[in-house]
Amino acid sequence: MPGPDPAVAAVRLGVRRALAPHRARRVVVACSGGADSTALAAAVAFEAPKLDVDPVVVIVDHGLQDDSAQVAAQVADRLRRLGLDTRIERVAVGADGGVEAAAREARYARLREVAARIGAAAILLGHTRDDQAETVLLGLVRGSGTRSLAGMAPVAGDLVRPLLEVTRAQTRAACAAEGHEFWDDPHNDDPRFLRVRVRRALAHLETDLGPGLIVGLARTADLARQDADHLDAEAEAARTRLGSAPWPVDTLVDLPVAVRTRWWRRALTDAGATLADLSSTHVRWLEALLTDWIGQGPVDVPGGLRVVRADGLVHLRRSRRVE
Amino acid sequence: MPGPDPAVAAVRLGVRRALAPHRARRVVVACSGGADSTALAAAVAFEAPKLDVDPVVVIVDHGLQDDSAQVAAQVADRLRRLGLDTRIERVAVGADGGVEAAAREARYARLREVAARIGAAAILLGHTRDDQAETVLLGLVRGSGTRSLAGMAPVAGDLVRPLLEVTRAQTRAACAAEGHEFWDDPHNDDPRFLRVRVRRALAHLETDLGPGLIVGLARTADLARQDADHLDAEAEAARTRLGSAPWPVDTLVDLPVAVRTRWWRRALTDAGATLADLSSTHVRWLEALLTDWIGQGPVDVPGGLRVVRADGLVHLRRSRRVE
Repeated sequence: MPGPDPAVAAVRLGVRRALAPHRARRVVVACSGGADSTALAAAVAFEAPKLDVDPVVVIVDHGLQDDSAQVAAQVADRLRRLGLDTRIERVAVGADGGVEAAAREARYARLREVAARIGAAAILLGHTRDDQAETVLLGLVRGSGTRSLAGMAPVAGDLVRPLLEVTRAQTRAACAAEGHEFWDDPHNDDPRFLRVRVRRALAHLETDLGPGLIVGLARTADLARQDADHLDAEAEAARTRLGSAPWPVDTLVDLPVAVRTRWWRRALTDAGATLADLSSTHVRWLEALLTDWIGQGPVDVPGGLRVVRADGLVHLRRSRRVE
Repeated sequence: MPGPDPAVAAVRLGVRRALAPHRARRVVVACSGGADSTALAAAVAFEAPKLDVDPVVVIVDHGLQDDSAQVAAQVADRLRRLGLDTRIERVAVGADGGVEAAAREARYARLREVAARIGAAAILLGHTRDDQAETVLLGLVRGSGTRSLAGMAPVAGDLVRPLLEVTRAQTRAACAAEGHEFWDDPHNDDPRFLRVRVRRALAHLETDLGPGLIVGLARTADLARQDADHLDAEAEAARTRLGSAPWPVDTLVDLPVAVRTRWWRRALTDAGATLADLSSTHVRWLEALLTDWIGQGPVDVPGGLRVVRADGLVHLRRSRRVE
């Protein structure tokens, strides 16, 4: 008897490893009906019974397209034919804050609700190595450092990504080999979405630089994640050690800059700064208070905080400026 | 009196800052005759007298093109007309190991010889923010982690890069504004060179993702450099603390993985491993000896070393395998 198609085998291997810690438990599997999550769901249907895992597939219908309810129903039908317990969840999305981010946030919230309701500790997501490469490239463009290059973790709390070592080409091949229909989201070709532009950019990059690119980006993510985890832990330790303001300048200057820039963000957020609005420019000004001290004035940071150096100490005050 | 052209001002600002620590000293300025290093040399001609710095411009002629001696002589003529003490150095390059890398290594060696001969402590190089972005993208493709994303430092030992905040468009504009002719190296358009392909890829990326890309890449480099410097210092401290083999498994397991992967490279190189041949796959096998221990056999690493786990210790032996 010949083994399964190589692409099917690759998807199943990822799923088997991801399910192993969840023996005799329930898991949620997120499925959009696209090739990635269809391959994921099909592999779960094959592997879960052998590991005594009880999967529930959740299709989230955002209603962003006219026929989305119909698409969701078709996807659910296909998955049920694979013997999977499948539910459709309708989740409305507000348009504020970018459709992409808003839809993702609402989707994850609903997946967690379902997981809580059915007593599942894990939510399986269909992100592939290509998605990982895109995420790293996005982080690079943003220029916000090692954490933003770390991409997505294979396991992040309740979120589990069994296909991060599998390519998008493999999920499509796996669907084709087993005759699973999948759905191509027209949003995946709409260049108004940054994610779509990043995908195109990545395809151009591969043409210019060769096929090693995706692997290189995924490896960068793994290494960056290790580094960012460790540096975050060090900044966390510094936050505990240094407590609240005022802080002696000498103590702060002794911190390595990689730790101190992370510590600033934590210490100021603790004091009421809004992290999302704290830019790298703010951090640069704060650093200058320590390392380029020429008696300059206070630094105002978002959230109504004023950082002042005086008498060898860094003080926090309420800013009078209205933001 | 109007001030200088904005591009000229930007180049001069970078040069002024870079020269400030070298008052009353000699410096070497590397010049290829291209726009970047021509703008650099012209700004040095303007700023050096005011800071009492004594510059010597060195043009390295690799003889890789038929007319290279003629080009070098023309460039030298132009620079001398700016009042710059200018020397041409002929440096033959072997073709082994890639023309790009070989030429760079030979060029830096000769620049250092000249610096030693004339008693200069610094060698100024014309790398721009675009070069920095290309270097980061190269590191990303290589997938070898945070250090390879750190790009080029503004000051690295004797190498000084005054133009890392200046764009290539600005160096061209600066040359045009002051009527300095420059030379376009035909190698800059030859797609056999990886650097040229990276440059093209970057241009495509900018088209797809917008003009913030180059800035994002340069900022990534700065942040990655801070992180890599700190993590390297921690690995160096671990090397001193742990000494030579054998090492207790418990002690190694207690190291953060970001530090330990860097420590492996140092500890094994100390013991005779060849760093250049020590791949991330080797490091992964070594890590498995610690964190995925199922009684597996030794790990052979390049340089004739065998890493063995036994009795709660990690031992080093000479490998019998001939490499």
